[in-house]
Amino acid sequence: MPTLSDIATLIGCPPPPDGGRTVTGVAALADATPDQLSFVTSEAFAEQYGKTRAGGVIVHRKLRLPPPPDGTAALTVDDTELAVSKVLELFAPPVPRPPAGVDRAARVAASAVLGEGVAAGPNVFVGERAKVGARTVLHPGVYLGDDVTIGDECVLFPNVVVRERVTLGSRVVIHAGSVLGTDGFGYRWDGTKHAKVPQIGTIVVEDDVEIGSCVCIDRAKFGATRIGRGTKIDNLVQIAHNVQVGPHCIIVANAGVAGSAKLGAGVVIGGQVAVRDHVTIGDGAMVAGTSAVAEDIPPKAIVSGTPALPHRQSLREQAAIRRLPDLVVQVRKLQEAIEKMQNAE
Amino acid sequence: MPTLSDIATLIGCPPPPDGGRTVTGVAALADATPDQLSFVTSEAFAEQYGKTRAGGVIVHRKLRLPPPPDGTAALTVDDTELAVSKVLELFAPPVPRPPAGVDRAARVAASAVLGEGVAAGPNVFVGERAKVGARTVLHPGVYLGDDVTIGDECVLFPNVVVRERVTLGSRVVIHAGSVLGTDGFGYRWDGTKHAKVPQIGTIVVEDDVEIGSCVCIDRAKFGATRIGRGTKIDNLVQIAHNVQVGPHCIIVANAGVAGSAKLGAGVVIGGQVAVRDHVTIGDGAMVAGTSAVAEDIPPKAIVSGTPALPHRQSLREQAAIRRLPDLVVQVRKLQEAIEKMQNAE
Amino acid sequence: MPTLSDIATLIGCPPPPDGGRTVTGVAALADATPDQLSFVTSEAFAEQYGKTRAGGVIVHRKLRLPPPPDGTAALTVDDTELAVSKVLELFAPPVPRPPAGVDRAARVAASAVLGEGVAAGPNVFVGERAKVGARTVLHPGVYLGDDVTIGDECVLFPNVVVRERVTLGSRVVIHAGSVLGTDGFGYRWDGTKHAKVPQIGTIVVEDDVEIGSCVCIDRAKFGATRIGRGTKIDNLVQIAHNVQVGPHCIIVANAGVAGSAKLGAGVVIGGQVAVRDHVTIGDGAMVAGTSAVAEDIPPKAIVSGTPALPHRQSLREQAAIRRLPDLVVQVRKLQEAIEKMQNAE
Repeated sequence: MPTLSDIATLIGCPPPPDGGRTVTGVAALADATPDQLSFVTSEAFAEQYGKTRAGGVIVHRKLRLPPPPDGTAALTVDDTELAVSKVLELFAPPVPRPPAGVDRAARVAASAVLGEGVAAGPNVFVGERAKVGARTVLHPGVYLGDDVTIGDECVLFPNVVVRERVTLGSRVVIHAGSVLGTDGFGYRWDGTKHAKVPQIGTIVVEDDVEIGSCVCIDRAKFGATRIGRGTKIDNLVQIAHNVQVGPHCIIVANAGVAGSAKLGAGVVIGGQVAVRDHVTIGDGAMVAGTSAVAEDIPPKAIVSGTPALPHRQSLREQAAIRRLPDLVVQVRKLQEAIEKMQNAE
Repeated sequence: MPTLSDIATLIGCPPPPDGGRTVTGVAALADATPDQLSFVTSEAFAEQYGKTRAGGVIVHRKLRLPPPPDGTAALTVDDTELAVSKVLELFAPPVPRPPAGVDRAARVAASAVLGEGVAAGPNVFVGERAKVGARTVLHPGVYLGDDVTIGDECVLFPNVVVRERVTLGSRVVIHAGSVLGTDGFGYRWDGTKHAKVPQIGTIVVEDDVEIGSCVCIDRAKFGATRIGRGTKIDNLVQIAHNVQVGPHCIIVANAGVAGSAKLGAGVVIGGQVAVRDHVTIGDGAMVAGTSAVAEDIPPKAIVSGTPALPHRQSLREQAAIRRLPDLVVQVRKLQEAIEKMQNAE
Repeated sequence: MPTLSDIATLIGCPPPPDGGRTVTGVAALADATPDQLSFVTSEAFAEQYGKTRAGGVIVHRKLRLPPPPDGTAALTVDDTELAVSKVLELFAPPVPRPPAGVDRAARVAASAVLGEGVAAGPNVFVGERAKVGARTVLHPGVYLGDDVTIGDECVLFPNVVVRERVTLGSRVVIHAGSVLGTDGFGYRWDGTKHAKVPQIGTIVVEDDVEIGSCVCIDRAKFGATRIGRGTKIDNLVQIAHNVQVGPHCIIVANAGVAGSAKLGAGVVIGGQVAVRDHVTIGDGAMVAGTSAVAEDIPPKAIVSGTPALPHRQSLREQAAIRRLPDLVVQVRKLQEAIEKMQNAE
């Protein structure tokens, strides 16, 4: 177990007075025991800070706080988030994984090519001509269709489905239950029925993408649906056919991006957002949670609401709606006043 | 098959005249055949009631209805919902399940401990040191990670994934395809990429919780995401890291609860609701479907809208918005009237 | 590989001058290479059309476009969508599937009846007395509960779960990870807990329905939840207990339809729409994406917004909301003007 001095070295702060004490984990200020670390990110927690039993507390240098209680070491840093992240990493238990090799209850096609150190757990299915890069981990129940290509050091959690011809880069993580490669949702009415429009394209997921659980990414009508490198997608997100997601985007849970929409680099899509088909969202734009994007959004714009408008405009409208019931009354009174004046003339 | 008299005894109403007739099931008023039961919950169904062919109809004592048709017995009760529930239970076919024991196509780690009468179907995976309580049923394709702890008499339906270190109480039901224990969605921008913030916590699901299909519950950043005893969660719900759900809550389909939000006891979250991170919803509060909760909600409040406001205020605003296009016209006319008066001065 | 003349014959247009050239696929105008086809659906793409390198471009007869570049054949048609669909079908690679027969790692109950040519891949589970029609394909990890009935030529993609007693028609397609037959979400408060209301009904999915990935369709409380023939459902959709969906409906991703709602024939439900329980939506009605349907919708109505209103009214209200902040100011000024006039009297 690390000592408080080890922690201080790790996060780059001066060694605390009683640095030889060991710590075993991280907890919230109110819950932490003397063998745990905690942290304060805002002066709003001053009272909890004053009463904490934590062995050590990571504190931002600029916070104005009372001295910590006896027995609690204050560990002051310039970047609390970074320090906490380092400490969490230190205490992170290893994520269990199947051992390297193909489990006897996995089914790997003879024509598939597995890189060095690939792990395929029980009930894994790997289709014909699939290529799986070195040290990639396929947890139990993962399905890879024919001609799937996966890079090195990917992790696919249990029951992930990657359909035929989809390509994943390296260090891609896909959490349990997600499905990549379902046909895009395309039909044309032929006079008697919705006739299926063939969806013959594929999906390209670039390096360092992380995808949550129960996410659905559809294959393109033709060409490829694309998820740019470093993009992170939360749970239960829908990405429709031919969507182009740029690098380093963030897409929060329950959001849906409709067909052929384009997200630039570093776009942030809040939770439960809906993005209409074919719209373009510029680099660095941010869409607040529960908004509905119905038109193109310029780069760096911050938008909110249904339909999504520049955030300031949206706030102004919301404030006006809060006053609307009163406004209705006010207008009625004005009308009466005017009528009275008119009658008096 | 039960007779009408059996039914009368079961639901606590006087025996009907022709009580020896048997019934085989339940159907809607308009569909029921003479060997089926039906029920009326409102006088709005008086006409259907007058024409039903049902052998017996459960009727609330206080409803004012015409006499039932010949051949239909009226079964009057004080609590229709309870009576119908008892009757449905009577006719409920048993839910199929794998037999007690470990299927030859299941994979259970040697260090796992299974209680008496545990059933593990084909393609079940149980990780190292997992503990599964007595009579718990693991349907085909269920995945339990290392160090998972599950109480007695739980039922996990096909392809449920419970990741490492997650704890479930007793009598917990999880429907097919749900995923518990995915990493919380946490990153910090390190200047060049979204660096992952380790999610080293876990999930505690208390006794008697029922969770629908394709639900995602994320593990905590540290500590535990918690679902309180007796809470019921519908399909396709997202529960983010560190969320604290109190006992006996109801969360309807497609809802999303963002990180560290706290729901008190008996909170009701309607369908497709979004709850912002870190907000607190007080005991007994109700959030109407499709609302977006952006701020703390006091206990017992009923809120609706985006953003969620006290329901009455929300209704007032909606009513005012319905009148808004007319209000715009009205204000224009007032302006003209005033200008006319000003010019006349 | 087909020649341009083959393509012309397929889509019913005059043979192009250089018809002997072969083409290998379809791409967007800007991406297509000389061995690929592309298409133009609007004059907005005139500039891209003038610069394309595609070997052939499918063009609607009525578009006014410049002549195509040298080396690009214009293939004029009356119905671009149909022509493109035919061409995509021509180039569609076959969808991989397990071979006919029962895989040695599948588990099929002895009492189940499989039609001629049924394919059951590895880790498939088929329960007691299940009936699977001729040539139906069960991809790896599919679960069919006891007494499930499936028609001919269905395709169930990996990890689909169809619970006990559910019935599917013929030519039904269900994409990976979807779950049919979870208990409807029904409880009654018994004074101390949410007591489960038994959900003893089932689901009937009629012929030619296609269901996306991670879709949840719940079994009825009694009777059957029904999905009408030819209906198409996108990913991550929730269909609650006792919902009745008519034939040839379209339900786009992330939508939720609450209990006992009725959709007529040919209803279109946009993405992320919420439909309240027990409402009826008339034949041919369309609900715009992200709307919330709170009341019955008449046939052929087009509705939008939360709550969903006739689309024109919704647009008028939205336009008025855009002007609302100005209206507030305007009313304040009117008030001042009137007060000034009143004081002057």
